[in-house]
Amino acid sequence: MITKISNPIFDTITIIGAGLIGSSIARASEASGVAKTIRIYDTNEAVRACAAQIGLGDVSDTIEAACTGADLVVLCTPVGVLGAAAQAAAPFLKEGAILTDVGSVKESALNDMVAVSPAHVHVIAGHPIAGTEHSGPDAGFAKLFSGRWCILTPLEDQSDSYQVSVQKLSRFWEAFGSTVEIMSAKRHDLVLAITSHLPHLIAYNICATAEDMEQVTEGEVVKFSAGGFRDFTRIAASDPTMWRDVFLNNKEAVLETLGRFTEDLAALQRAIRWSDGDQLFDLFTRARSIRKSVIDAGQDTAAPNFGRRSDEDDTPAE
Amino acid sequence: MITKISNPIFDTITIIGAGLIGSSIARASEASGVAKTIRIYDTNEAVRACAAQIGLGDVSDTIEAACTGADLVVLCTPVGVLGAAAQAAAPFLKEGAILTDVGSVKESALNDMVAVSPAHVHVIAGHPIAGTEHSGPDAGFAKLFSGRWCILTPLEDQSDSYQVSVQKLSRFWEAFGSTVEIMSAKRHDLVLAITSHLPHLIAYNICATAEDMEQVTEGEVVKFSAGGFRDFTRIAASDPTMWRDVFLNNKEAVLETLGRFTEDLAALQRAIRWSDGDQLFDLFTRARSIRKSVIDAGQDTAAPNFGRRSDEDDTPAE
Repeated sequence: MITKISNPIFDTITIIGAGLIGSSIARASEASGVAKTIRIYDTNEAVRACAAQIGLGDVSDTIEAACTGADLVVLCTPVGVLGAAAQAAAPFLKEGAILTDVGSVKESALNDMVAVSPAHVHVIAGHPIAGTEHSGPDAGFAKLFSGRWCILTPLEDQSDSYQVSVQKLSRFWEAFGSTVEIMSAKRHDLVLAITSHLPHLIAYNICATAEDMEQVTEGEVVKFSAGGFRDFTRIAASDPTMWRDVFLNNKEAVLETLGRFTEDLAALQRAIRWSDGDQLFDLFTRARSIRKSVIDAGQDTAAPNFGRRSDEDDTPAE
Repeated sequence: MITKISNPIFDTITIIGAGLIGSSIARASEASGVAKTIRIYDTNEAVRACAAQIGLGDVSDTIEAACTGADLVVLCTPVGVLGAAAQAAAPFLKEGAILTDVGSVKESALNDMVAVSPAHVHVIAGHPIAGTEHSGPDAGFAKLFSGRWCILTPLEDQSDSYQVSVQKLSRFWEAFGSTVEIMSAKRHDLVLAITSHLPHLIAYNICATAEDMEQVTEGEVVKFSAGGFRDFTRIAASDPTMWRDVFLNNKEAVLETLGRFTEDLAALQRAIRWSDGDQLFDLFTRARSIRKSVIDAGQDTAAPNFGRRSDEDDTPAE
């Protein structure tokens, strides 16, 4: 749930990048009242025009206008251009301003932002674990972050003023209905490699394999996709640029988890080839137990409608 | 939608195996009026007792009582014991009776049933593409097959009486709201290998990999599973016995598609290791296009609530 707060946490916040996440932050900021002024900027003129048309805060024409005097600057770009966005914003950041991001890889984000920021800026990397398979300014909605985790990976800076900034940024996300978790960037990247990056890679891969198989099966892969394949196509519908950058910037952890996955798959393949039913059964039973853990942890429901309800928080508000 | 038909298609139908599919057929038969008498049998006494308690048709105590005089016998057992079930039923099948099944592999099913059936029985293999991740007699519901495909893979028998049986069995499934498609068993097994069997194998495998990673990540894989992993755990929650049998009985097609998948994944892994962003981007874009085909074919919706609505046909009626 979004909390309408009485005293704004920030005077002026600036959102750089008006895609799914950026436009959702603009809407959630408006709905929750976390800031007096909400500025938004995108390097793409057409996106800026679209943002202005649908009324996403004050659309700035330059990054200078967007960042000057802002108390919080949220970089909502693909991971691959985060460094460039931070560099463009840096000269205009005032003393004590918070610079954060929303990308799916945190160690490279922290490095990219710190490398170009003046010492008087508080750099805190962040990652709201929320999204849909849709992209662009009109894909956003205020409740996107409601009931979701937001992981913050701050620097080791123990100064009081930095810690106050971490607390303010936490309250900002909490106002959107998120639960904030603080961890190191390295740990974040390993955990997300298995919970998000590998699943997306696998989903993309199975879609590519299926597309090739359509030459043999003549349209029947799509026709009979409800047998399980369909669920993978949804995951694989996400933004290609965003995901390219995730894999390039979390290479080490992704290759590590992918290596484990491939070893396990080779063992499964061998069990099928040699008709080792017991090994298959044992592995399938183990896999089922992790599903139970996910349900027990409240991360999904056991309902046979695929664990999702239309009144769930991730449904668009409109 | 289930059609309430005025004239029953069969006098007596018999369902062998009272799991998710068998109990759903019993309920759908009752709701649609496809038969005057609905008999149900399960080798497991506790399952029979449960079936009787929840009122799933006439529960028979022996397979002889269940099959004697039946016009249609539907074997709803795991694929691995289908031959044994057919053998047990065969001596009691009357002239012109239809013997069918509901398993996910069709070439082995057809062979298993034909091998033990008297010549006067019409063997037609079948596969309703429907299911949930739940198992057992109380997991079934009448609308499970509504809006779903049902693939029938008949023999090449061109006799009039056999073709009449194929038509009657088609009308049976259509009364449950299914769309019937007729194809060869071999083609079915190849199409399902990519649309269903491989996705399940991959989902099981990623769950096993994730479980091992939990030793490093200490519960955080489950905690942050909403990033994509959660969707795989649902698929991997399906019945281990059923899936073991699917892989053992569709070995050739599964190993073929798995081989293609593994090759594609190795290429992706290499692209990540060598930071080949263009190759990643191209593949992700191709994968996205197959998602579009799935939506265009009406197999899913583009809605951001993961393409599922609570009023959808696969929601239990209760």
